[in-house]
Amino acid sequence: MVDILHRVGIADTAPEAVHEALTTIDGLAGWWTTDTTGDPTPGGTIAFRFPPGGFDMKVLSSQPGEEVTWEVVDGPPEWIGTTVEWRLRRDDGWTTVLFAHRGWAEPVEFMHHCSTKWATFLLSLKSLLETGKGSPSPHDVHIAYPD
Amino acid sequence: MVDILHRVGIADTAPEAVHEALTTIDGLAGWWTTDTTGDPTPGGTIAFRFPPGGFDMKVLSSQPGEEVTWEVVDGPPEWIGTTVEWRLRRDDGWTTVLFAHRGWAEPVEFMHHCSTKWATFLLSLKSLLETGKGSPSPHDVHIAYPD
Repeated sequence: MVDILHRVGIADTAPEAVHEALTTIDGLAGWWTTDTTGDPTPGGTIAFRFPPGGFDMKVLSSQPGEEVTWEVVDGPPEWIGTTVEWRLRRDDGWTTVLFAHRGWAEPVEFMHHCSTKWATFLLSLKSLLETGKGSPSPHDVHIAYPD
Repeated sequence: MVDILHRVGIADTAPEAVHEALTTIDGLAGWWTTDTTGDPTPGGTIAFRFPPGGFDMKVLSSQPGEEVTWEVVDGPPEWIGTTVEWRLRRDDGWTTVLFAHRGWAEPVEFMHHCSTKWATFLLSLKSLLETGKGSPSPHDVHIAYPD
């Protein structure tokens, strides 16, 4: 099993505000994809849709200001059964976000792509909280051919 | 051992041009750090310097249009002995870059940081080749506190 790992720091933002951007439809639609629907509370399932397809995430756990964990229950075969973990930590007035997309069976080329793409969406989350404006799909940063 | 993996696609660019940006001082200074010196040919050592420190990379192999591999011979303890691999592939008029920073002993928090930071530098490489302008240090994208 292999994991995608990332970290960003969000200036002048409390962990509770980051948690809200990860656990509300408006928040999620502000940085990942505008086409976000479903139930973002523990036990619920969130449907994230993009022009080429999407992911359904079951919310395994959520602690305000501390963490959110999702399990991928539908989407590309490589994603199903993997988990997406968000860990939040207060650093002075900043919030540090430790991100992990765990449980890939193999380090396939699609994993390389998703690793880079997750980085752009974490920077979109950072931008949403620091400036009020993220870059969710379909306004996301394109990184590859034919992405 | 754990690896950082990324992929970007560079539009309207031949693999040979990407290889040049990875194997010349001017190219490397255009996307990673303006403070780049040394010998970027096989067997040589390149010194990359940033405001907080830097890395010395020995060039293990280099094939025009195909690949470049470095070994970290000096820098932060977590980096020493790791390898940085660049694999290039022609996709129509694009070049796909498969990147791997291999051999981290542990998935420490610093690895999370470097994973995200590598993504921003790969996008800087993409921008350099597509537009003529990258974002090398000290003009790089800041992602964290206190980065």
